[in-house]
Amino acid sequence: MGKYADIYLKGDAWNIIEEGFSAEHSEVSESIFSLANEFTGVRGFFDEGVSENYSDEKVASLRGVYFNGMYEVEKTEGTAYRGIVQHTHFMINSPDWLWTKIILDDEEVQITKENTSEFLRILDMRHGKLVRSFVWTSKTGKKLRLVFTRILYMDVPNYAWQKIEFQPLNFSGSIKVISACDLAPVHQSRQKCYWDFVKEIRFNNSETLLVKTKTTEQKLCISTSWEHDADIKEDYYSEGKIFGKAFTLELTEKKITSLVKRVCFVIDKSNKYLAEELIQKTSEAAIAQKKLTYAQAEYNQASYWKRVWDYSDIQIEGDDLNQQGIHFCIFQMNQTYHGIADSDNIGAKGLTGEAYNGHAFWDTETYCLPFYLYSNIKAARKLLEFRYSTLEQAKARAKMLDCSGACYPVATLNGDEACNLWQHASLQFQPSSGVAYGIAHYYALTGDKDFLYGHGIEMLIEISRFLAGRGAWNQDHTGFGFYAVMGPDEFHMMVNNNAYTNYMSKKSFDFTLNVLRKMQEESPELYKRVVEKTGFTKEEEENLKLCSEKMIILFDEKKKLYEQHEGYFTLPHIDVNKIPVEDFPLYGHWSYDRIYRTDMIKQPDVLMFCFLYRSEFSREVLKANYEYYEPKTIHESSLSPSVHSVLACDLKKIDEAQKFFGFATRLDLDNYNRNTREGLHTTSIAAAWINIVFGFGGLRSDPDLQENLSIAPVLPSTWKSYTFRFVYEGSLVCVKVCGNEVVVNVAEGEPVNLNVYNKNYKISEVPLSIPMETEASV
Amino acid sequence: MGKYADIYLKGDAWNIIEEGFSAEHSEVSESIFSLANEFTGVRGFFDEGVSENYSDEKVASLRGVYFNGMYEVEKTEGTAYRGIVQHTHFMINSPDWLWTKIILDDEEVQITKENTSEFLRILDMRHGKLVRSFVWTSKTGKKLRLVFTRILYMDVPNYAWQKIEFQPLNFSGSIKVISACDLAPVHQSRQKCYWDFVKEIRFNNSETLLVKTKTTEQKLCISTSWEHDADIKEDYYSEGKIFGKAFTLELTEKKITSLVKRVCFVIDKSNKYLAEELIQKTSEAAIAQKKLTYAQAEYNQASYWKRVWDYSDIQIEGDDLNQQGIHFCIFQMNQTYHGIADSDNIGAKGLTGEAYNGHAFWDTETYCLPFYLYSNIKAARKLLEFRYSTLEQAKARAKMLDCSGACYPVATLNGDEACNLWQHASLQFQPSSGVAYGIAHYYALTGDKDFLYGHGIEMLIEISRFLAGRGAWNQDHTGFGFYAVMGPDEFHMMVNNNAYTNYMSKKSFDFTLNVLRKMQEESPELYKRVVEKTGFTKEEEENLKLCSEKMIILFDEKKKLYEQHEGYFTLPHIDVNKIPVEDFPLYGHWSYDRIYRTDMIKQPDVLMFCFLYRSEFSREVLKANYEYYEPKTIHESSLSPSVHSVLACDLKKIDEAQKFFGFATRLDLDNYNRNTREGLHTTSIAAAWINIVFGFGGLRSDPDLQENLSIAPVLPSTWKSYTFRFVYEGSLVCVKVCGNEVVVNVAEGEPVNLNVYNKNYKISEVPLSIPMETEASV
Repeated sequence: MGKYADIYLKGDAWNIIEEGFSAEHSEVSESIFSLANEFTGVRGFFDEGVSENYSDEKVASLRGVYFNGMYEVEKTEGTAYRGIVQHTHFMINSPDWLWTKIILDDEEVQITKENTSEFLRILDMRHGKLVRSFVWTSKTGKKLRLVFTRILYMDVPNYAWQKIEFQPLNFSGSIKVISACDLAPVHQSRQKCYWDFVKEIRFNNSETLLVKTKTTEQKLCISTSWEHDADIKEDYYSEGKIFGKAFTLELTEKKITSLVKRVCFVIDKSNKYLAEELIQKTSEAAIAQKKLTYAQAEYNQASYWKRVWDYSDIQIEGDDLNQQGIHFCIFQMNQTYHGIADSDNIGAKGLTGEAYNGHAFWDTETYCLPFYLYSNIKAARKLLEFRYSTLEQAKARAKMLDCSGACYPVATLNGDEACNLWQHASLQFQPSSGVAYGIAHYYALTGDKDFLYGHGIEMLIEISRFLAGRGAWNQDHTGFGFYAVMGPDEFHMMVNNNAYTNYMSKKSFDFTLNVLRKMQEESPELYKRVVEKTGFTKEEEENLKLCSEKMIILFDEKKKLYEQHEGYFTLPHIDVNKIPVEDFPLYGHWSYDRIYRTDMIKQPDVLMFCFLYRSEFSREVLKANYEYYEPKTIHESSLSPSVHSVLACDLKKIDEAQKFFGFATRLDLDNYNRNTREGLHTTSIAAAWINIVFGFGGLRSDPDLQENLSIAPVLPSTWKSYTFRFVYEGSLVCVKVCGNEVVVNVAEGEPVNLNVYNKNYKISEVPLSIPMETEASV
Repeated sequence: MGKYADIYLKGDAWNIIEEGFSAEHSEVSESIFSLANEFTGVRGFFDEGVSENYSDEKVASLRGVYFNGMYEVEKTEGTAYRGIVQHTHFMINSPDWLWTKIILDDEEVQITKENTSEFLRILDMRHGKLVRSFVWTSKTGKKLRLVFTRILYMDVPNYAWQKIEFQPLNFSGSIKVISACDLAPVHQSRQKCYWDFVKEIRFNNSETLLVKTKTTEQKLCISTSWEHDADIKEDYYSEGKIFGKAFTLELTEKKITSLVKRVCFVIDKSNKYLAEELIQKTSEAAIAQKKLTYAQAEYNQASYWKRVWDYSDIQIEGDDLNQQGIHFCIFQMNQTYHGIADSDNIGAKGLTGEAYNGHAFWDTETYCLPFYLYSNIKAARKLLEFRYSTLEQAKARAKMLDCSGACYPVATLNGDEACNLWQHASLQFQPSSGVAYGIAHYYALTGDKDFLYGHGIEMLIEISRFLAGRGAWNQDHTGFGFYAVMGPDEFHMMVNNNAYTNYMSKKSFDFTLNVLRKMQEESPELYKRVVEKTGFTKEEEENLKLCSEKMIILFDEKKKLYEQHEGYFTLPHIDVNKIPVEDFPLYGHWSYDRIYRTDMIKQPDVLMFCFLYRSEFSREVLKANYEYYEPKTIHESSLSPSVHSVLACDLKKIDEAQKFFGFATRLDLDNYNRNTREGLHTTSIAAAWINIVFGFGGLRSDPDLQENLSIAPVLPSTWKSYTFRFVYEGSLVCVKVCGNEVVVNVAEGEPVNLNVYNKNYKISEVPLSIPMETEASV
């Protein structure tokens, strides 16, 4: 699709480096240099702000600060038919705790083209911090080196630090620093501030600020205190909605003076606490935070990240760009989410921008969950707990659609459906079957019956109930299926018997029935409880069986092809390669209805369920469907190429797999879609990991897989070797793929059984070398 | 569907009579007692206003005054994908020239429950006027009879009169009357006035007012003058946006004193004239109007209506309710439209309310046009000229949909597409094929080559060009059809090869090709001109031939059934008779998506093209399709029953035909849908006429009919006899259907050939009696 790299950052395995400020990439960099710790996130903006006089052109900036699950609600515009969402919610820009103003001899320290040298911005992925430094020259010729470092603390996610170091290079004298918090941040695309000021408390040299959102009445309490060298004059400062302290620092030539701002946040997402209670909690947290010096915090942060890398690092020899890229992906995945709270999920842009409103999509269970399943199983469970904690909302949504059971939202942040396009929200059920898939996937790898019998089964029952009610019997009652739906391929709307929807619903029914059967044997008490709680009847159970048995799966035996939906095979054909490059993205250049009436596919649909249940399909079937559907696919979703790459690996089409892998790890670093300024493509980042581990590594992890976990690595021709690691049955398994061998060992924990190229091995800490299977040898 | 009559009006063949004010029907009556003359319309509201103190409950009122083609534009809300309408336009409430205030001894004369007797409101359909009278008693016991009469003049449609008669029953003395015009009418549903005041000119005892619309800058100039008995004191009056005159009348006991207000309107729809020019035009028109006394105007109005009734009256013996009903329908059709201007069309509610925004739909060509074709051929042509005058807008709309040619709007008032629901505006092409059908229908009955070769063919080329571009070849290039469309049955969206769309497109192609062929022979010059003007190529001609030839028409040979669209036959079945009455209308009670996924049908689709081209289908095919589709149809559109009634007549299912005819003529008089208060169902009114003439009368008028016009009357069992009349080849043909015979004659003009019960007759002025064909005799 004519995507090409826009490279301006330096390659380095562990750091993303911007040498010299690239003003035209200002917002792109803000996205890329984002920090987050699931609880909160900040874009990599300049603490001191962007000068209006940087050069002739205005430098764009989005000072984005976000808290997971802090949002506002607004009435949507458009049609008001029943079942169409009338209110949407969206993540809001939150108080800017990095707000800083530095004044030297009445001149404000801000970067311009003329006054700045040695600009360097580094995202240090090994240690989890952002460092930015430059030398600034005043109009009177004074040279000052500044270093800004920020940390969003992983150990205790409501702690953060900002450190500013001042080094006068050719003078001594005083400098004024206003170190504050801006309580009136403006949501950029809606041009509105959603926060109301509640209270300011100045006490014991700290500044505590309480604000709340306008209509959702979520509260945020911020306590700031400062750590600094001696010889500082300080006083409280406020101007408008900006509150903090003004410092006067006495600088000595060559000597580094630093000012550290500690910030501690307490949020109240559901308006549970009184203002006083919240302030009390914040004050306690702030006292605990003060016990850490900045140096200790930095050390702890690095230790946290070391553990992360120990469990999930991927190393690539011979491809520096992808090496940096995959580190960036793994880093961002952990930043965005690592399982702090039930009420957190993974927005399509993580916590890096306003686009997509902070909403999580069905990507969470299908694209993101696997990463956590293999590196942080607790986080994987938490992701599923999010769905459990929002089950009531999914049930309410089903009711809006005149159905019983639970219909999980297409887009959400708080559990409510936030998508006001009825053609998506009312027709797409992959979020619901995706949750069922996620539960099955999680259970297959963990055997966690506590979760499955406690929360999982309740979701499964309600999901199956919804699907069984939304589906219908065909005219002559010979088959059950779904009518007027939209599958993952969003270029076909209101179709009947979409293969993905039907297949995944059948799987949902089967898994629900299996779990119920097993539970009845193993835990009759729990079984009884859930049946009572949900009111699940024998008739419903029988009905699920029948629906599954008679599920319409359109399959052409001769051609070994699944038909994407009724009538797909006779649709007008369009050669997607002949669509002019400038027509993309199609939504922007084609009449809306025009997108929906050919055999052109947006993203995998048949191939998507083939991917999710790879082990169920013979190579012949996979091949037939891959070769039929891939050429019709334009991959307009950034999630599409990786799925195709994985399947190409399965089919040993390694070059094609590499082609699809193409920009998987560097989609944002090289701004392939030219929209990284809006935020990172967080769920695509997860797909890059899947691409390497499931694709090149050949890891198979279908929930229905009865045998051992299996791998079947291939080696992309441009790579010398690569390693990946994953946690399986509590053990850390390391795989190194070289030119001619695959070396596997357990780095931590008990030996595990693993299937490599269709042979079973017991893998222990002693590295086991297995000859590489090449395309020819299959 | 559980509709039942709400009868409060008195039955009378030629008058609609309200005896005693029914306050709870206030707005229903305003709709029913509407007057119009195509140019302008007024609801039957009280000139003097509705008292706030009528009784305990507030009496609803919509003081609606409308001008055909006077509208405003607003940005629509909702999604902004390409091809989706971003601005909509709507008919606006216009200056209220009937504004009147009457004061007797400082007491305002307004109806309340206590102070009024002998209330009578009469719509006099024979003479074309509205009369309202009552006796009002003041707090001091003075009794005054008032009679309000209004006329919207048919001969010169920018003239109107209001007459007020005062008869003091038990006193003599003076009364004050403010007779004015309110320039700030509020659009009720949008709660906004769209008019700006421009100028007031007081001259020669008349009052001239110029106003213009806020954004469209359409201008309206109103000149008012008064005609009255002697002994009147008068002066100009203005208060806020109300301008007129204040009169003091000296009344004498028992004597009737009258005050007549003449009003003359000049409008400038396209902002062509300067204010001064418009005022000049108005002044000239007003001078001409003054030459008519009120008595003359009333006489001329009655004469106009006599001609109308002479040409289109339907008489029913033995069914007083339907007799009144069909008179009401014919009266309203003529009021709404009779062919004054190219820029006028027939709104779904005519000029009787704000609902549907004054928009015309495809109903114009399919439901309304036949009435004019058989009673006022000039008006029929004007209706088609409306489409010609908006051809450029239809071409622009096609471009918005990434197509060439002309796509006629789903809803419009000025020619632009005003429907902002993409699922209708971007998927429904019955307006386009409907225009082609209308042209063919018109030509079949008139042979008007002036129109066909002058304007018709250009529309046909552009319509066919659009349809050929919007359609597509199926995957293996064996068939041409339409993908992702919505046919007339709006309960199936984004379907492929909808039978109606495909069939009607084929007909459009064929007719276009036929006309071109004939034109090339008969008028090579005109042919050359239109081919050059439209750039129509030989390749396009060949393509149209091929598309028509290979048009996919899904037909089950064994069952003789057309399939409504691909996959319709296997859709889940729903028994529409089991849907609870309280679920209707479904749009209000069902989740939006739920409406679209069963075999339930909103209004005829297959049966619609069977109706439009009845002669093309064997009785066997008609029967099979009628019996298959009718039971699946819920008739949610008020246009649906009549089409079924006509087909039932063809199939000699007379009782069923009568059942569907049910409330056709009295839909509004008896407020069956309980929404008559919003305005009349103008296009349904047309369907009632079709029901009698095409259905019971069996008139066949398919555009493709090669033979003589034919009738095949049946007699509903509850009727003793009925007559209908129509103009055919310039002659007025009268048909009387009795119990055992059909009597036909030509009342005016030359003898005509007519086929009655499949036999050809020459009909002359001598009545010809033909034995009635009964069900048994077929």
